[in-house]
Amino acid sequence: MENRKTAPVGVFDSGVGGLTVAREISRQLPNENIVYFGDTARVPYGSKSQNTIIRFSEQIIRFLKTKDVKAIVIACNTASALALDAVRDEFDIPVMGVVIPGARAAVEATKNRKVGVVGTDATVQSGMYTKIIHGMAPDVEVIEKACPLFVPLVEEGFKEHVVTREVIEYYLESMRNTDIDAMILGCTHYPLLRSKIREYMGDRIQIVNPAYETAMDLKKLLREMDMENDGETVQHSRYSFYVSDAAEKFRKFANTVMPFDVPTTNVVNIEEF
Amino acid sequence: MENRKTAPVGVFDSGVGGLTVAREISRQLPNENIVYFGDTARVPYGSKSQNTIIRFSEQIIRFLKTKDVKAIVIACNTASALALDAVRDEFDIPVMGVVIPGARAAVEATKNRKVGVVGTDATVQSGMYTKIIHGMAPDVEVIEKACPLFVPLVEEGFKEHVVTREVIEYYLESMRNTDIDAMILGCTHYPLLRSKIREYMGDRIQIVNPAYETAMDLKKLLREMDMENDGETVQHSRYSFYVSDAAEKFRKFANTVMPFDVPTTNVVNIEEF
Repeated sequence: MENRKTAPVGVFDSGVGGLTVAREISRQLPNENIVYFGDTARVPYGSKSQNTIIRFSEQIIRFLKTKDVKAIVIACNTASALALDAVRDEFDIPVMGVVIPGARAAVEATKNRKVGVVGTDATVQSGMYTKIIHGMAPDVEVIEKACPLFVPLVEEGFKEHVVTREVIEYYLESMRNTDIDAMILGCTHYPLLRSKIREYMGDRIQIVNPAYETAMDLKKLLREMDMENDGETVQHSRYSFYVSDAAEKFRKFANTVMPFDVPTTNVVNIEEF
Repeated sequence: MENRKTAPVGVFDSGVGGLTVAREISRQLPNENIVYFGDTARVPYGSKSQNTIIRFSEQIIRFLKTKDVKAIVIACNTASALALDAVRDEFDIPVMGVVIPGARAAVEATKNRKVGVVGTDATVQSGMYTKIIHGMAPDVEVIEKACPLFVPLVEEGFKEHVVTREVIEYYLESMRNTDIDAMILGCTHYPLLRSKIREYMGDRIQIVNPAYETAMDLKKLLREMDMENDGETVQHSRYSFYVSDAAEKFRKFANTVMPFDVPTTNVVNIEEF
């Protein structure tokens, strides 16, 4: 498997949100090459059915495999919740999601066994975080809350606008009035609102960012499989970005998230895969 | 063409927004049957490229033709702006959009020859309203403004929330400071915010709702082509609703927009058409 070490990691999301996961991977595994795919032609996944999300995920994994990736990270909570089991059985390379790492971190963090989860409609309606947390720790009470406006607010660059504070209050007031002591940011866009959410929820509640936990898990997985890039053979173009539509808009947003310059984004007709 | 009179009118949109157009058609042409398609698996169109939107529109028109429609209304500003010319040439039944009726109404309404247009990113970036207005009246000055948060706010049921007033101010303050005297609601969701927008913009500015103008144009077209339903052969199921995903969510929203009960919504795999 020596030649697999320099192969890239595939990371995909319904759009730009998964960039927060790619960012964590680039921080914690600085030697790894990344091929990122954002399904900008079909974003958002949050309101789509499980069958549709499995079909879209299969197409994307087939595309990423053409880039010779050694492992795949589903950097999208909705797809992790709804498609991970199906695609894991189907493909011959390791596939990870963000839900399990996030759930485990919350179970480890909570002292009083009460955890909150915020995410898209589909993630919350699937109840996947609750199921996975209960599989790990049946005694933990889970309170889930959908916050559908967070994604458009982030994408519109409203991070610092007064409206964002009010929308946070609208969605999270009931959550703050519970006695949870850990809360999972169950959508990859939400880490971009992390400081505002933390400010509103207060220091009592530990905010769990699954992007961070996922990068840690990826590191462990690559090490166990002896696929970690040792850094000696870093290629010139270490990060490449593909989308299904609107490349320039994606590129601009990517440059506000990633800690390095994203010079180009390529368009792929994903329905062909 | 006698048998065409009772055939339904096909109406389509990227999602639920076009229901405001279907509502106007049901008000102004109460004898007409309607087949509505909402592309909820691929919503929103506002951030997608022209080629993608033409391809999606072609698939939907092929589907609507299987329902034997006599005419088609593209009840989506983005698709009207980007796909109407292409699909008009391609299909053998009349196809109308919402942009031309809206533009014409604004040209007729403005006294001081200054018109505002609000819409999605794609509609505003296409500059289609400006081009079409200038084709009708080269002396009219057009000021366009994208308001991307209006759609998610409407879909989240925030019509009456204080945040909506603040977002309206955020987007429309610069528009209000101009001396336009007519403003086109260039996205089919926006009529659902009409009273709030009117309240903010003031009585000086006439708000043009292309849904209303489009229904008027459809009436005229059907009359001219002798395809108007005379009302004697109204079928039992006069309105039918199809979507590409998430039928129940669509049905619930449709029941908040339409002036009658929407009992069922059917799912279609639109990529097969």
